[in-house]
Amino acid sequence: MPTRIVELRQGVLNKNDQLARALRERFTREGTLVINLVSSPGTGKTLLLEQTLRRLVGAGTRAGALVGDLETDNDARRLAASGAPVRQINTHGRCHLEAEMIGQHLDAWQAGPFDVLFIENVGNLVCPSSYDLGEHHRVVLLSVTEGEDKPLKYPTIFNSADVAVITKYDLAAACEFDDAAAMASIHAVRPGMRILRTSARSAPGLDAWMAWIDERLGRVIVPAP
Amino acid sequence: MPTRIVELRQGVLNKNDQLARALRERFTREGTLVINLVSSPGTGKTLLLEQTLRRLVGAGTRAGALVGDLETDNDARRLAASGAPVRQINTHGRCHLEAEMIGQHLDAWQAGPFDVLFIENVGNLVCPSSYDLGEHHRVVLLSVTEGEDKPLKYPTIFNSADVAVITKYDLAAACEFDDAAAMASIHAVRPGMRILRTSARSAPGLDAWMAWIDERLGRVIVPAP
Repeated sequence: MPTRIVELRQGVLNKNDQLARALRERFTREGTLVINLVSSPGTGKTLLLEQTLRRLVGAGTRAGALVGDLETDNDARRLAASGAPVRQINTHGRCHLEAEMIGQHLDAWQAGPFDVLFIENVGNLVCPSSYDLGEHHRVVLLSVTEGEDKPLKYPTIFNSADVAVITKYDLAAACEFDDAAAMASIHAVRPGMRILRTSARSAPGLDAWMAWIDERLGRVIVPAP
Repeated sequence: MPTRIVELRQGVLNKNDQLARALRERFTREGTLVINLVSSPGTGKTLLLEQTLRRLVGAGTRAGALVGDLETDNDARRLAASGAPVRQINTHGRCHLEAEMIGQHLDAWQAGPFDVLFIENVGNLVCPSSYDLGEHHRVVLLSVTEGEDKPLKYPTIFNSADVAVITKYDLAAACEFDDAAAMASIHAVRPGMRILRTSARSAPGLDAWMAWIDERLGRVIVPAP
């Protein structure tokens, strides 16, 4: 690849990093915990988010979501049924969200303040890893149907995330999913990474995920003196 | 996005298109049918390719594969068990294959001639759609676990493909997969597109897929006078 392009790309990333840093400061100042969900297309980000928003809204937490997709507002319409404010970001062919899009949509959105704001990234295991969106935590999803070696094949996105959620766990047996192999792959890329397991059809995994969010919310909303 | 970057990207694409055109002419001249497989990570490209190579090699067809991944040579090692020559292309962070990579790896590879050469692209539903690799046919895979509306959300890759293969069909019932909805999504993006259905655990779908390849092979190897 020609040097000029690499330099320009570097410039774009630096600008993104600066915008992301400013966003994170703003979120922290406003007491909003921000969580960026990344994964392949079809891993179940939207379903996890739907269940999460329902629980948070039901518990009186002010939760919202920004949802990225190349086209369609299917996800935003689906998520709005949770009762939480949701806004769709269409990237029109761009394969990831950038900090500038987050800032622009927040400014144009008559919603909030939020205790917790989720960002559902475009389904892509590569490019979103390079774009900080100002989030406090990045969560990578991996479904049992995808193959246990995905973390080794897409190391950057697993390495840049704080937590891994293994989804569709109810299909683990049908897919002959090897949990130990998946854990080994994740920990080879990011030693000691926290791993949660969820399923659309059973609650225990979701309880652990909600507990993880609650713990983070406590830290943001009740800061140490 | 600044104008300069758009222009540069356009320039990169034009260069790629020129290289791809030259590759396609070369493949046609040498009597090699080239098929580019694209999909999300974990849709089952490697498994389909493994089964396909075994069958082709078993039938005496000279088949080979170039396999793209960000990191690891897991797929090439797995595919080599089929008996076909296989070469791994590591993109080291790039989210798609480009025509230049195909040309360089072909030149450095002591293999062939092939009746059919498969290219397994990096798992990504966005960027590979913009990069012609000199293939004769582009095949997009969609697994029943991914959601029926993926073609609407990632229209370019479905629109730029010639055939859609719905994989993991043995999990369709467990996933409550809605075949009619998936077909409607695919045909909304690309009316009349040929759709095949495969499963790792049953042969009928694979038979239809092999018949499709045989038909294409016939056309390339025995060109009309």
